[in-house]
Amino acid sequence: MRTTLPDVPAQVSRPPGRFLRVTAVRRVGVLGARGKVGAEVCRAVESADDLELVAALDVDDALEQLSEAGADAVVDFTHPDAVMGNLEFCVGRGIHAVVGTTGFDDERLRTLEGWLTDAPGVGVLIAPNFSIGAVLMMRFAAAAAPYYESVEIIELHHPTKADAPSGTARRTAELVAAARREAGSGPVPDATSTGLEGARGAEVDGIHVHSVRARGLVAHQEVVLGGVGETLTIRHDSMDRASFTPGVLAGLRAIGDRPGLTVGLEHVLGLD
Amino acid sequence: MRTTLPDVPAQVSRPPGRFLRVTAVRRVGVLGARGKVGAEVCRAVESADDLELVAALDVDDALEQLSEAGADAVVDFTHPDAVMGNLEFCVGRGIHAVVGTTGFDDERLRTLEGWLTDAPGVGVLIAPNFSIGAVLMMRFAAAAAPYYESVEIIELHHPTKADAPSGTARRTAELVAAARREAGSGPVPDATSTGLEGARGAEVDGIHVHSVRARGLVAHQEVVLGGVGETLTIRHDSMDRASFTPGVLAGLRAIGDRPGLTVGLEHVLGLD
Amino acid sequence: MRTTLPDVPAQVSRPPGRFLRVTAVRRVGVLGARGKVGAEVCRAVESADDLELVAALDVDDALEQLSEAGADAVVDFTHPDAVMGNLEFCVGRGIHAVVGTTGFDDERLRTLEGWLTDAPGVGVLIAPNFSIGAVLMMRFAAAAAPYYESVEIIELHHPTKADAPSGTARRTAELVAAARREAGSGPVPDATSTGLEGARGAEVDGIHVHSVRARGLVAHQEVVLGGVGETLTIRHDSMDRASFTPGVLAGLRAIGDRPGLTVGLEHVLGLD
Amino acid sequence: MRTTLPDVPAQVSRPPGRFLRVTAVRRVGVLGARGKVGAEVCRAVESADDLELVAALDVDDALEQLSEAGADAVVDFTHPDAVMGNLEFCVGRGIHAVVGTTGFDDERLRTLEGWLTDAPGVGVLIAPNFSIGAVLMMRFAAAAAPYYESVEIIELHHPTKADAPSGTARRTAELVAAARREAGSGPVPDATSTGLEGARGAEVDGIHVHSVRARGLVAHQEVVLGGVGETLTIRHDSMDRASFTPGVLAGLRAIGDRPGLTVGLEHVLGLD
Repeated sequence: MRTTLPDVPAQVSRPPGRFLRVTAVRRVGVLGARGKVGAEVCRAVESADDLELVAALDVDDALEQLSEAGADAVVDFTHPDAVMGNLEFCVGRGIHAVVGTTGFDDERLRTLEGWLTDAPGVGVLIAPNFSIGAVLMMRFAAAAAPYYESVEIIELHHPTKADAPSGTARRTAELVAAARREAGSGPVPDATSTGLEGARGAEVDGIHVHSVRARGLVAHQEVVLGGVGETLTIRHDSMDRASFTPGVLAGLRAIGDRPGLTVGLEHVLGLD
Repeated sequence: MRTTLPDVPAQVSRPPGRFLRVTAVRRVGVLGARGKVGAEVCRAVESADDLELVAALDVDDALEQLSEAGADAVVDFTHPDAVMGNLEFCVGRGIHAVVGTTGFDDERLRTLEGWLTDAPGVGVLIAPNFSIGAVLMMRFAAAAAPYYESVEIIELHHPTKADAPSGTARRTAELVAAARREAGSGPVPDATSTGLEGARGAEVDGIHVHSVRARGLVAHQEVVLGGVGETLTIRHDSMDRASFTPGVLAGLRAIGDRPGLTVGLEHVLGLD
Repeated sequence: MRTTLPDVPAQVSRPPGRFLRVTAVRRVGVLGARGKVGAEVCRAVESADDLELVAALDVDDALEQLSEAGADAVVDFTHPDAVMGNLEFCVGRGIHAVVGTTGFDDERLRTLEGWLTDAPGVGVLIAPNFSIGAVLMMRFAAAAAPYYESVEIIELHHPTKADAPSGTARRTAELVAAARREAGSGPVPDATSTGLEGARGAEVDGIHVHSVRARGLVAHQEVVLGGVGETLTIRHDSMDRASFTPGVLAGLRAIGDRPGLTVGLEHVLGLD
Repeated sequence: MRTTLPDVPAQVSRPPGRFLRVTAVRRVGVLGARGKVGAEVCRAVESADDLELVAALDVDDALEQLSEAGADAVVDFTHPDAVMGNLEFCVGRGIHAVVGTTGFDDERLRTLEGWLTDAPGVGVLIAPNFSIGAVLMMRFAAAAAPYYESVEIIELHHPTKADAPSGTARRTAELVAAARREAGSGPVPDATSTGLEGARGAEVDGIHVHSVRARGLVAHQEVVLGGVGETLTIRHDSMDRASFTPGVLAGLRAIGDRPGLTVGLEHVLGLD
């Protein structure tokens, strides 16, 4: 999960009390369809029984093809330079959007909300991480954190990864630390007084994070929560890049019922 | 988790819309204080900064000592034959109760609700399993289940355990299966066509459950959820019987704010 | 590991007491080079600093190209119908062979030994499993088994696998059981007296084996050994089919020093 | 494992070529019998079918009781100040010894060898770590290390532990590094170029070691070995201090056949 995303309350523009049952998304267009990620999305939409791929566009294609194809929703994995234009077009034409493109700041989100106010039935989901497993791991870790004295994070990746810890590990640590602060938890117990530098890992908001790098690994993370006489471990193993597509499909299936702006896959997963 | 407990909606008798801020529980009495479990509870209450052990009673002691000691709440780990009498006494005197004693059926719960209706500020928590980790594991597994094609359960225990699978594993499978049914999930994929009997474990509501028994193990369970290219694993390791005491303390800290009947530790953990 | 392979003592034809320092293998030919496995082998040989791919042949190519190219050794991943002809050719011309092709029975092995007797410097390695990790897991499990009261095996695979348990799990159980028998170990402790059918898994030679099937998994196995107060767990995770190539390269690097017939990668790994 | 022990070749004083079949140890004396560890040893000897506890001595008891009781062997968990006197007495009287007491340096070992030269049938085993699981984990990790590009160590302990990494983790790293050096392995791959300090753990001889501390944990270690497309993980979980007793019993059962000095439990386990 990229940590640059501002902390916007989910669905700030959804009108309270209103309940629109929009017809379910069926006809899907993909923007960025020739990219690696977009191509995977196309394949996933095509294999889903309840969805139909009606448009697969890339940088040089005209957005009008979406309207002509009767798309109910688009998936956008394009570029920060292109995504706002794409969304203005879609929202204006009543097309829902599920967005994995990066680069959203407060200003962009406010602009987007403005457009959505004028298009009350339309839903836009922006998510920095479409891996359902990673999102569930983070949510469960944060939900469990107040009940345990200790929490540590171990992330394990292939040895060609440049950053340590991973963005997901940092984000998990921040969420865990926030949950503990809110619950009034004290610092994690740690009597280490002698040893080698680095043994206890990096600290993110007071949570120790360890980065393992080994050939053969893909992308894995384990959150260990410990209390008197017991531990709870939540582990996510990602063995294949295609693992983000179920999150995109979950977004498509939910977005018809979520008018307004939603930030974060967790809200679509019914975890809020 | 004992599975004989009837499925009573949580807090059926809490008056809707009402919000009583009862003063927090501070002075605690323990019933069954000389039993193994009760003794652990006494120790845990005594070590908690925000709680005070004011009465430690067992089978021959007079319940009046609770009132004399000014107990705000009791913890009851006694016997099915004794617990209803204990609760009638406590509810009648405005003393909250956190109950781990077994043997509650629908009739007992209705009787208890009757008493609570006449004592609107009093809260009673009845829980078949006070291990926070086990409860969290079950809740997380059920919450995640609809997002994964596959779910299997592996429980691992010491080799002197008589039953296989464990009660917690069965209960987890039931909760996972129910969550999948509600979400409209199909059966888990399984192409096994040849092999040895038993290899694929036992089936509980369509969920495969495997029981490992080995010297050195205490009580462990792992729920493996699998989707395209990724798995999410939730594991609970219980290394010591004292691991149930944090759940009892969580119950004590919450019960002052939960008038009426609550069944299941999960509601106290803010997981409903 | 395919379990149909007869239990031939390793290197039966190596002359005792003799020590030939053959020059290391450098120039490698691959037979079956256009198959999926053969193609991976070609890539692996090409990327190895100390090896050179000098011939990549498939079914229609003439074996003479091996001699012309000056191959020191071949890797054979072809077909049971072709492999004996290939080996007769190679042994006759002093070319070592590392063989993953199946179908060897006692008769074939004896024939092969006959050829090798007439070509004393030549080495042939036949291995049913070239995954170094799987071989190490089996050897370590068998080596540790006599020191533990309990041993159980959990294998985890993708849900399209037809057989349960896996061949590797069966083979591991056989090796563990044999090691325990030899050490005079009694049966594993198990007090299970009530439960659901299949919960305790399949039994192979008295060792319990559990087969987990879930989407997202590839090929994994865990051997749990338990004694008083401790467990030792040996786990192998295979995430990619390319994981057999290091075993092939290890075979190539060793075969120049192992005249005669060797059956089983473990002998090449220095584990005997 | 304490790392201060000098690297003495095992059994330096065993006369080569000689093969004494000494009668198996049956009658056992325990020195330090009232200490925590000694008491566990007494219990373990008493429950073993093939052994008999004939003397349980502590600091004020006369060593002559060992001879009077007809002890075949002693177990010594006493004090560096007492152990040499104890061993001089035992070796002089033909009593084998299994020693867990610390404080052996080169000088002490040489003295001990001198005594053993004069008592050719007597065996003494000195081991810094009697946990069979820990010893097996270290040996397996070192045996596997040359076959993998990557090796990392994660040790997990209770949060009251003062040192990080643990002695066992350091020792494992040293053994792994030595095995890789001997095999000519290069450095482990690691492309980390940006991140937080400590994320990649401590380095011991070029091997990364991570120390996790959490309430509920006892003493655990995991060695992760990674190669192309696969990982091999060796994990030791120690849940109870009694886990060292099987190693002591293994020492007692072997020492009758191992005249001379043996340093390290691994030799007794048939792993050399």
